[in-house]
Amino acid sequence: MGRTIVGVMGPGGGATEDEVSAARELGALVAAEGWVLLTGGRACGVMEAASRGAREAGGLTVGILPTEDAGDASEFVDLAVVTGMGQARNQINVLTSRVVFACGAGAGTASEIALALKARRPVILLCATDEARAFFTALGHSGVHLAHSPQEAVGIARALLRE
Amino acid sequence: MGRTIVGVMGPGGGATEDEVSAARELGALVAAEGWVLLTGGRACGVMEAASRGAREAGGLTVGILPTEDAGDASEFVDLAVVTGMGQARNQINVLTSRVVFACGAGAGTASEIALALKARRPVILLCATDEARAFFTALGHSGVHLAHSPQEAVGIARALLRE
Amino acid sequence: MGRTIVGVMGPGGGATEDEVSAARELGALVAAEGWVLLTGGRACGVMEAASRGAREAGGLTVGILPTEDAGDASEFVDLAVVTGMGQARNQINVLTSRVVFACGAGAGTASEIALALKARRPVILLCATDEARAFFTALGHSGVHLAHSPQEAVGIARALLRE
Amino acid sequence: MGRTIVGVMGPGGGATEDEVSAARELGALVAAEGWVLLTGGRACGVMEAASRGAREAGGLTVGILPTEDAGDASEFVDLAVVTGMGQARNQINVLTSRVVFACGAGAGTASEIALALKARRPVILLCATDEARAFFTALGHSGVHLAHSPQEAVGIARALLRE
Repeated sequence: MGRTIVGVMGPGGGATEDEVSAARELGALVAAEGWVLLTGGRACGVMEAASRGAREAGGLTVGILPTEDAGDASEFVDLAVVTGMGQARNQINVLTSRVVFACGAGAGTASEIALALKARRPVILLCATDEARAFFTALGHSGVHLAHSPQEAVGIARALLRE
Repeated sequence: MGRTIVGVMGPGGGATEDEVSAARELGALVAAEGWVLLTGGRACGVMEAASRGAREAGGLTVGILPTEDAGDASEFVDLAVVTGMGQARNQINVLTSRVVFACGAGAGTASEIALALKARRPVILLCATDEARAFFTALGHSGVHLAHSPQEAVGIARALLRE
Repeated sequence: MGRTIVGVMGPGGGATEDEVSAARELGALVAAEGWVLLTGGRACGVMEAASRGAREAGGLTVGILPTEDAGDASEFVDLAVVTGMGQARNQINVLTSRVVFACGAGAGTASEIALALKARRPVILLCATDEARAFFTALGHSGVHLAHSPQEAVGIARALLRE
Repeated sequence: MGRTIVGVMGPGGGATEDEVSAARELGALVAAEGWVLLTGGRACGVMEAASRGAREAGGLTVGILPTEDAGDASEFVDLAVVTGMGQARNQINVLTSRVVFACGAGAGTASEIALALKARRPVILLCATDEARAFFTALGHSGVHLAHSPQEAVGIARALLRE
């Protein structure tokens, strides 16, 4: 059996300090569980922070890049998967992840949450706005989990992966 | 210049009567404007209803199929584009549409609304829940328009395409 | 049932005069049969010539663009499907076409011929080099047809579509 | 900087004994170089043999699956990237690989060779037919390399990656 891959999704350029800080901690905790971290791969925002956290904690990081250029990957990505497919790669992000953590929610991240629910991947929301929590909970029912800290988020994922 | 293509997105199997009825009327109005109708192509729900409405009003209909089988297309689709890419084809749906009408919002449709906002395509919401209206308005700001009827939705699109 | 779509594939920028001339005639003949023409959509080479031939003969033309910009479409494309997926869109080209005409064979076209054979779409080679004819015939057996003129190519397609 | 990923492409179900045996040795040699092995991920033919060879030699293996089901991955794949995109994933295979080894050439593999040349990835042919060698050499010029053994193939790749 292959290794367990979990995804951390979130804004790139427009990420807030809170989102970046939570993503970095989330990355570290994911690595500590022995899971492989997957992100959208780029050198900014939540993607880079999560990859950095995981790398610094000794984990393995995979980045699924939207562009055709491996050089766009964050320096904290170990394995850059180059798709050249723009946001269509969001579908690969969620299909490849056994659990999807969403850290904040811009438009790209919202598409990943929705695609994850469509593909029946459990989603754990962190740093979500009230509107996002209300909308995705109504949309995804028991597939959507709310967490208030990276620790709680990883605890939820651990329970889900044990099922 | 090519013809103007607009997309009508919405649930397949789980569509409500209201959504199906609005989609059919929307399809007819789109055809009356001389626009080409794009949908996700399958033989159910909002996709089929919109295609049917457009076809019956003498319009041209394009369906972007998720499967590898052209036989999955609705009988009301004139041109079946076969992607074999599952929900990754949602990105094609929105990139190809100059305006995106969302008629209801299951998980697949929500991914299309989010992808449309990411790609800076204007989105017009019809039959949306309160949670969907609140979430997508907060997410997409001036890129999201609320309509209360197919007529109003098409009026908004007409104004947007004139800009 | 939807309309019959056939694809004409071939080089963009590097197309020879013979390939361009054959593509334009092929486009006209495709339109005369009442088939919809599909190409890779860009404003150059075989793609544009085939679209031009079909348009001038009163046919309908679909272009499956590799970029995210509908403005990259040839002026002879009626319906620009915007994928933003680079050469991954070649798979859509062949899945959507009931018959694939290859007019010359650069690397992009060779990938389309191979993908068509993999997807069990019949391929008709025109303006192919000796090496291409030998290779693809060995690869695709009865799925590969050799034509010496656009007329012969369309005659083969007509017979295949009647089966 | 991320790790160096190289791809081994080749037939699934229809692979010959020679192709399978060469693929397994190639996988082992790739791992010995410290490169990450990429394949199409499925549990058969050249893909599985290369993954097995690399895994047994202590290497890391990535499989880019065409289906939506991680369970389709070979047991020798460490990281299963799930695309659900059918043969469109071949483009991801070649964009992600810094060098592409083709071990035999059915239609799927031929599409990958052609896509690799289009994307300017060097291709090393092993176990190729005379027709394949002639065609791809004419198509790809200095981008195509012929090898007579896995050792020679890896030696060529080593030189290319040093450039």
